[in-house]
Amino acid sequence: MLSPTKLAAAFDRVTDYWSPKVIGQVNGQLLKVAKLKGEFVWHAHDGQDELFYIVKGSLRIAFEDHAVDLEQGDFLTVPSGVRHNPVAREECWVLLIEPAETKHTGEELTERTRSLEEQLS
Amino acid sequence: MLSPTKLAAAFDRVTDYWSPKVIGQVNGQLLKVAKLKGEFVWHAHDGQDELFYIVKGSLRIAFEDHAVDLEQGDFLTVPSGVRHNPVAREECWVLLIEPAETKHTGEELTERTRSLEEQLS
Repeated sequence: MLSPTKLAAAFDRVTDYWSPKVIGQVNGQLLKVAKLKGEFVWHAHDGQDELFYIVKGSLRIAFEDHAVDLEQGDFLTVPSGVRHNPVAREECWVLLIEPAETKHTGEELTERTRSLEEQLS
Repeated sequence: MLSPTKLAAAFDRVTDYWSPKVIGQVNGQLLKVAKLKGEFVWHAHDGQDELFYIVKGSLRIAFEDHAVDLEQGDFLTVPSGVRHNPVAREECWVLLIEPAETKHTGEELTERTRSLEEQLS
């Protein structure tokens, strides 16, 4: 028996900022929800695109030569290898799509790095 | 320069039912928008999962042994190889995620089958 996943309910499980939770998958790509507030860290994902979809609020994604402002209902795919830094002036709810092997801080291991086990909990 | 895609605006381009339009990609998975109304056709996608996310309205996906009712904000991944038939009693807007090689009618070629070229137009 298959059953639907409710996006709003998935966000109820998210209690910490910058701590994605896995809520589904399609062909090896994980769907994750996260609440963001403040500035993250500069990083890149080699060999892995990362999609951001804004469920609530707004998000600026800084790149080395420009920035993209995302509003509710917008999505953006950050291409593999492109350094970026998400900045949320106010609390922002995002849906992320990326492969299971993606570390959300890229190759930068910081206090904000969460293991896949933590993201599945 | 990267720029965001607005989901609502993407639906403005969709004028026909059951005729998906590609609006983005992440790691080889295509994001498509479609407007659905009525019953589609029974089909399966061998080797390819297909994700349905309900942007507006509601959708029943019939399986051989049960059915799943999806409301706005719900998503469901139909696993590879599982026969299904989407049925929309009223107009429903969906975001689909599936590989570039997925035919939306599976191995069934019907009058509703749209080529990838048509989906990119």
